[in-house]
Amino acid sequence: MTKHRFSPAEREAVYRAISERRDMRHFRPEPIEPEVMSRLLHAAHLGPSVGFMQPWRFIRITDARLRGDIAELVEQERARTAEALGPRGEEFMRLKVEGIKECPELWVVALMDQRERYVFGRRTLPNMDLASASCAIQNLWLAARAEGIGMGWVSLFEPTRLAELLGAPRGSEPIAILCLGHVDAFYERPMLELEGWDSRRTLEELIWENRWRSAEG
Amino acid sequence: MTKHRFSPAEREAVYRAISERRDMRHFRPEPIEPEVMSRLLHAAHLGPSVGFMQPWRFIRITDARLRGDIAELVEQERARTAEALGPRGEEFMRLKVEGIKECPELWVVALMDQRERYVFGRRTLPNMDLASASCAIQNLWLAARAEGIGMGWVSLFEPTRLAELLGAPRGSEPIAILCLGHVDAFYERPMLELEGWDSRRTLEELIWENRWRSAEG
Repeated sequence: MTKHRFSPAEREAVYRAISERRDMRHFRPEPIEPEVMSRLLHAAHLGPSVGFMQPWRFIRITDARLRGDIAELVEQERARTAEALGPRGEEFMRLKVEGIKECPELWVVALMDQRERYVFGRRTLPNMDLASASCAIQNLWLAARAEGIGMGWVSLFEPTRLAELLGAPRGSEPIAILCLGHVDAFYERPMLELEGWDSRRTLEELIWENRWRSAEG
Repeated sequence: MTKHRFSPAEREAVYRAISERRDMRHFRPEPIEPEVMSRLLHAAHLGPSVGFMQPWRFIRITDARLRGDIAELVEQERARTAEALGPRGEEFMRLKVEGIKECPELWVVALMDQRERYVFGRRTLPNMDLASASCAIQNLWLAARAEGIGMGWVSLFEPTRLAELLGAPRGSEPIAILCLGHVDAFYERPMLELEGWDSRRTLEELIWENRWRSAEG
């Protein structure tokens, strides 16, 4: 039963992309080659989607003033998050959580409007559209790593405010601000792990059989 | 700026996994080697997560009766979905939408409980936990393709009922029933495209600049 298996070198490459992908916040200023950016978006569009609805929409931010407005929106949410975090707020404010002003490519990914027309696989789980778009973004992220491009997914924003900035219609929903660019180095481990924000759980404690196993710390 | 770029062969392998991944509903009965299944779960656990919260929990279904209950739950939702689809209900009922009874490996992925403790990146977008877990599942899906293993993500179920079947606590949330196994062949294109359920949009119509471009069909 190995006829569909990739070659050892191919498998290794896939696992390499998965293990070396990082949520980046530091970027170099050099532009991303248009053909590379195009390959990344095609990779995203090959993502799975519930009922084949393809809910993702990609908006490239090229207007400097709009980029500034988005950076400000994120800065406001950063302050509100710090407040909401209480005792860890100061620690949070010392982290670099985005590279919106530096990255050469800035994109917003949004869920389309009129999603209520799609029922397949969403009657009881309507947010499967977000799940689909997230898989598409993960495709983009892994392809970017293979291309040597760093990407960061920023979710520190008020979605209705971002929708307004983009003139997005009622019913649509921005889910990600993506920062992309070349990098000096990919972090060796997730930055929040390096910074001591949290640690990686052992996988074994997250795998159970037939029943939920409770009592987590 | 190419020092972090994978070799051409490695890049090709990553793009191959992305383009040949399929949402499978037909499986062969042979078991998946435990070391392969372990690699797939490790790939999932390397997914990105908002605030490094690692919200994913994996429950392996080995109990035959529980598998039967899950199959029945999905069958009920399939009927309800057909009804909700109205004029396309009959067409929907003719599609094979899952392989729960045949697949050698059946898993449920759920979001953990007590997620309200995690604020980082979720104050305004609390469902970023689902986004993170979806990225983890996409990792698993792509790794599975590289291993020659097919996977299907079933979202036709009532989540509270599935949580009950698993003894999952209040606040947790099942998001996926995953069917995995060897396959005779990977579908050449997404099955819903082959079956004429919907067609793939051209990517160009989904990419905009600075502002939402409305007027979709």
